[in-house]
Amino acid sequence: MSAGDRMLEMLDRRRRRFSLPGPFYTDPDFLRLDISAIFERRWIYVGLECEISEPGQFFTVDIAGTSIIICRDRADQVRGFFNSCRHRGSIVCDAAHGKRSAFVCPYHQWSYDLGGRLLRAPNQDDAIDKSAFGLKPVHVTAIAGVIYACLAASPPDIGGFAAALEPALAPHGLRDAKVVHEITLREAANWKLVMENARECDHCAAGHPELMRTLLVFDFADPWSDPYISDFWKRCEAAGLPSVTKDGPDFRVGRLPFQPGHLSITPDGREAVKRRLGELPSHDVGSLRFALYPSTFNHAHADYAILVRLLPSGPEETLVNCKWVVHKDAVEGQDYDPQRLVEVWAATNDQDRKLVERNQRGVRSLGYEPGPYAASSEFGVWRFVEWYCATMQDHLRGPAAVRSAA
Amino acid sequence: MSAGDRMLEMLDRRRRRFSLPGPFYTDPDFLRLDISAIFERRWIYVGLECEISEPGQFFTVDIAGTSIIICRDRADQVRGFFNSCRHRGSIVCDAAHGKRSAFVCPYHQWSYDLGGRLLRAPNQDDAIDKSAFGLKPVHVTAIAGVIYACLAASPPDIGGFAAALEPALAPHGLRDAKVVHEITLREAANWKLVMENARECDHCAAGHPELMRTLLVFDFADPWSDPYISDFWKRCEAAGLPSVTKDGPDFRVGRLPFQPGHLSITPDGREAVKRRLGELPSHDVGSLRFALYPSTFNHAHADYAILVRLLPSGPEETLVNCKWVVHKDAVEGQDYDPQRLVEVWAATNDQDRKLVERNQRGVRSLGYEPGPYAASSEFGVWRFVEWYCATMQDHLRGPAAVRSAA
Amino acid sequence: MSAGDRMLEMLDRRRRRFSLPGPFYTDPDFLRLDISAIFERRWIYVGLECEISEPGQFFTVDIAGTSIIICRDRADQVRGFFNSCRHRGSIVCDAAHGKRSAFVCPYHQWSYDLGGRLLRAPNQDDAIDKSAFGLKPVHVTAIAGVIYACLAASPPDIGGFAAALEPALAPHGLRDAKVVHEITLREAANWKLVMENARECDHCAAGHPELMRTLLVFDFADPWSDPYISDFWKRCEAAGLPSVTKDGPDFRVGRLPFQPGHLSITPDGREAVKRRLGELPSHDVGSLRFALYPSTFNHAHADYAILVRLLPSGPEETLVNCKWVVHKDAVEGQDYDPQRLVEVWAATNDQDRKLVERNQRGVRSLGYEPGPYAASSEFGVWRFVEWYCATMQDHLRGPAAVRSAA
Repeated sequence: MSAGDRMLEMLDRRRRRFSLPGPFYTDPDFLRLDISAIFERRWIYVGLECEISEPGQFFTVDIAGTSIIICRDRADQVRGFFNSCRHRGSIVCDAAHGKRSAFVCPYHQWSYDLGGRLLRAPNQDDAIDKSAFGLKPVHVTAIAGVIYACLAASPPDIGGFAAALEPALAPHGLRDAKVVHEITLREAANWKLVMENARECDHCAAGHPELMRTLLVFDFADPWSDPYISDFWKRCEAAGLPSVTKDGPDFRVGRLPFQPGHLSITPDGREAVKRRLGELPSHDVGSLRFALYPSTFNHAHADYAILVRLLPSGPEETLVNCKWVVHKDAVEGQDYDPQRLVEVWAATNDQDRKLVERNQRGVRSLGYEPGPYAASSEFGVWRFVEWYCATMQDHLRGPAAVRSAA
Repeated sequence: MSAGDRMLEMLDRRRRRFSLPGPFYTDPDFLRLDISAIFERRWIYVGLECEISEPGQFFTVDIAGTSIIICRDRADQVRGFFNSCRHRGSIVCDAAHGKRSAFVCPYHQWSYDLGGRLLRAPNQDDAIDKSAFGLKPVHVTAIAGVIYACLAASPPDIGGFAAALEPALAPHGLRDAKVVHEITLREAANWKLVMENARECDHCAAGHPELMRTLLVFDFADPWSDPYISDFWKRCEAAGLPSVTKDGPDFRVGRLPFQPGHLSITPDGREAVKRRLGELPSHDVGSLRFALYPSTFNHAHADYAILVRLLPSGPEETLVNCKWVVHKDAVEGQDYDPQRLVEVWAATNDQDRKLVERNQRGVRSLGYEPGPYAASSEFGVWRFVEWYCATMQDHLRGPAAVRSAA
Repeated sequence: MSAGDRMLEMLDRRRRRFSLPGPFYTDPDFLRLDISAIFERRWIYVGLECEISEPGQFFTVDIAGTSIIICRDRADQVRGFFNSCRHRGSIVCDAAHGKRSAFVCPYHQWSYDLGGRLLRAPNQDDAIDKSAFGLKPVHVTAIAGVIYACLAASPPDIGGFAAALEPALAPHGLRDAKVVHEITLREAANWKLVMENARECDHCAAGHPELMRTLLVFDFADPWSDPYISDFWKRCEAAGLPSVTKDGPDFRVGRLPFQPGHLSITPDGREAVKRRLGELPSHDVGSLRFALYPSTFNHAHADYAILVRLLPSGPEETLVNCKWVVHKDAVEGQDYDPQRLVEVWAATNDQDRKLVERNQRGVRSLGYEPGPYAASSEFGVWRFVEWYCATMQDHLRGPAAVRSAA
C-alpha cells in the first residue's frame, strides 16, 4: 500500500477530537506527504518587509529543503525566487541576508537582475534564449509588513487572512521596525506537535512560569464570555484598534489584554521598549496574536513583536525561528535593554522545546494511543488538527474525489 | 516484494549452521520486522527488583523506541506501564529512575497512581471516563530478583525459564543487592551480531586476555563430557545449589566453575567483594551463567553479578547496558574496591564492542557470504540463530501457517 | 513503481545536454542503483603500486560499503580480496595499510596467505574443506603504477584505457614514487556532482584563483584548434612522450601544457620538487591529465602527481581522497617543501568542495529544473552524463533489452 493510501485510511478511521495516530508524527513518508501537500502549497511566513527596506536587499529561507530568495526589486516591490541557478541548479545566494545589485551564481557566474531576469550566462555565449532561463518566481505577499511566500504555481487564496490581519496589525507599524534579536531552535519533534503545542495554553501554568506572570489564559472557544476580554475589545475597537478575534479555516487573529496591570511580556509586565511600535496611542493595547497554518504564530505588543516560524527538517525534527522586532528608531541601551526584551520568550521557547520533545518520545511508543483534546482549553489544537486532516484528505483524494463527487 | 516476503524467502533458502545472509544484519526493514516480531513480543530483561525496593521507586527503559516505566506499587508489587500519557502521548516520566507518590505528566499534569490509574486530568474536568484512560500496562515478572517485561498483550510462556533460573539464582540473593556500577555501550553492530558474539568463547583466547585468566572455556555442546565440570556440578548439587546446565528453546541456565584455583572474574581470580551475595555458603560456587533470547546474558558469581542487556537502536547499532551488582550491605572501600570489581568485564565489554563492530563492517560487504559455525565451540551461536530463524518464520507465516497446518 | 522503473522512465524522458533531474542527485534508492550498476561493476582506482612495493604490504579501501584488501603477494603480484572473513564475515584487516606475512582474522583467527588461501581455521579442526573458504578475490590491474580494482565477477574491458594510459604515464615512473601527502574530504554532494565539477573548468576563473595562475583553460571539445596546444603536442610526441588527448567511452587521457612560462601547479608555477618523477627529460612536460569514470581524475606533472578518488558515502555525500606523489628518492626539505607542494591543490579541492555543496543544496530544491550544458566548455560534463545515463539504461534494461532486441 502506498504511503498516501495508508495515510488516507488512517484519516478516514481516526477518532475526532483525539490526537493523531503515531505515524503522523514519525513516518518519513508521511512527512514527505505533508511537505508536498502543505509546505509546498500553502502560504508560509518568511520574514519582514523591514528586513529588506532598500532595493537590492534580500534574505534567504529554506522551506523543507527548498531555498528561496526574498528581495526588494528596483521598483520597490518584494519579490520571491527559487534559489536555484537555471544552469546546473546551484544555490545562487549562499548568504542568509545581504544587499546585491544583481544575483550572480557563484558557480559559473550566471547573473540575474533583481527581477530574476537572466542577464548573462558567460559560458553559453548567445546559444541560449535568456528569456527562458530567468530565476523561477515564488509567489509573495506582504500583509502589514509581514511577508508570506507560496512555492506553488497556483497559491490558495490568502484574502481572508489579509483582511483580518492588515487593519489589526497595521497600527503596530512593522514596516518601520527592525529585527534586533533572532534565534533558531532545532526541536526533536514533528512539526505538528510544535504547532499543537502553540495552539493551547493548558500547559502554560506548569510549563511557563515566566510567561504566566503576564499572559492571560482565557477560553479559546468563547472569548466573549469573559467580561475582562469583552470590555477590552470594546475599549480598543472604540479607539479604532481592530481587536475582536477573527477565525478563518487556517488562521486566527485577535487582540487580547495581558493580566490586569501589565503592558507587555516582560519579567515584570512593564514595557521592554520605551519607543512604541507604529503610531500606537499607548502601551496599553494588549497583544495582537495571529497565527496562520502551517508555519507561524505571533504576538505583537505595543513595545515589541515576536514572530515565530516553524518548518520541518525531518519527520522528528522542526526548526523554530523567532525574531524580536522593535521600532526602527528605538535605541539599544536607551530605549530598551536587550536582556529584558528577550528574556521571557527565550525561556518560554526553550520550555516549549522540552515539552514537545517529550511529546515526540511518547508518540513514538508502541503504547501510544491517540487521546482526547479538551473541548474548551484545547479548542485551538483541535481546530488545527481538523484543518490538517481535511487538507491532507483533499490532497490525497485529489481529482479522484472530484470525479466521485460528480 | 514486501520486506516480510524477502526475509521469508531468505530464511527458507538459507544454509543451516551458517551465519545469516547480509540483509539480516543491515536492512532497516528487517530490523523493523525483528522489533515487531521479537522485541515487542518476547520477554526482555529490564532491571532488578533491588533497584525499586520501596513503593514509589521506579526506573524507565527504552525498548526499541518504546519507553516503559517499571515501578513498585503500594502493595509492594512490581508493575510495568507504557511511558506515554493517555492525553496526547507525552512521556510521563523523563527521569531514568527515582521515587514518586504518583506519576504526573509534565505536559498537562494528568496524574496516575502507582497502579497506573488516572487520578486527575485537570483540563478535562469531568468530561472523560477516567477508568478508560489509565496508563497502559506492560506485563512484568520477576525471577529471583531479576525483572523481565513483555510489551505484547499476550506474552509468551516464561515458565520454563523461570523454573530453571529461580532455584539456581535465588541463593545469590539479588533481591538484597544493589547496583554499584553501570555502563551503556553504543555498539555499531546489529543486535544479532552482539548476541552471537556472546554465545561463544572461541574468540576469547585472542580477544579477551584479562577475562581468560579466570574464565573456563568448555564444550558448549556437551559440558558433561568434561570431568572438571561434571565433578563441580555433583559437588554443587550435593550442597543444594542447582547447577547443571538447562537448555530451553530460548534460554540457557547453568553454573560453571572458574579455571582451577579461581573464585571470581577479577584480575587475579580472587574475589572482588568480601561480603558474599545472598546466603551462599562460600566463594567457591563458580559462576551461574544465564541467558534469555533476545536481550540478555549474565554471570552471577558468589561475590558479584554482572547483568547485560542488549537492545537495538538501529539496524547497525545496539545499546549494551551492563550492571555490576553486590550485596546491599557491602561497603565500598571496605568490602570491595570498585576498580577491581569492574576491571575485567569493562575491558571485556569494550573488546567485544570492537569485535562485533568489525564483524558488522564485514557483513555489510558485497563480498560477504554466510560461513560455517563450528559444531562444538559455536554450538551456542547456532542455537541462537536457529531460534531467531524459527521465530521469524512463525511470525511471518502467522495465521496462514496455522491454516495450512490444519 | 520500483526505483529502477522510476529511474528508467526519467532517463528515457530526460533532455539531452541538460543536467539530470533532481532525484539522480538526492534519492537514496537511486544511489543504491548507482552502486550496484557502477561502483560494484566498473574499474575503480584504489591506490598505487609504490604503496605496496614489498611482498606482504597491503592497503584497504572501502568502495561504497565494501572493504577490500589490496596487497602484494610473494610472487610480487598485486592481488585484491574482499576484506570479509569466510567464517562469520568479520573484517579481516582493520588497518588502512601495513605489512603482513598472512592475514589473520582478529575474530577467530582464521588465517589466509597472501594469495587468499585459507591456511588455518582453528575452531573448525578438519571439518571444513579449506579450499572452499579462501578470501574471495577481487579483480585488480595495474597501469603504469596505478592500481584499479573491480568488484564484479566479470569485469568490463579496461584495455582501451590501459592502452591510452600506459605509454603516456609510464615516463612519470609512478612505480618508483612515494605518497607524501594524503587527505580525504567529506563533501556534502552526490558523487555525480563531484565528477561533473571535475569535468569542466568554466568555474575555475572565479572559483580557483590559486590554480588559475598556472592551469591552462582550453577547448575541451576541440583541443587541436589551439596552436599553443597543438605545438606542445607535436614537441612532446617528437620527444617520445605520448601526449595527444585520447577519448574513450569512459575515459580521457591527454597531456596539456601549463600557461606559458610555468612548469607545475604551484603558487608561482615553478616546480615544487627538484627531483623529477621517472626518467622525464625535463620539467617542461606539462601535465598528463587522466580520468576514468566513475571514480578518478588525476594530474601528473614532471615533479609531482596528484591522484584523486571519489566514492559515494551517501546519496548526498562523497568521500574525495587525494594523494600527492613524488619520486621515491626525493628528500623532504631538500628536494621539496611540503607546503609549496600541496598548497594549490589543497586550496582547489576545498574550493571545489564548497562549489559542489552549493550545487547539491540547489538541486534538492522544488524549484530545480535541469539546465543546459555549454557545448564547448562543458563538453566533458556532458560526455560523463551521457556515459552515466547509457550505463544505467543498459543495467536497468538488462536481459529484457537483449530479448526484445532479438
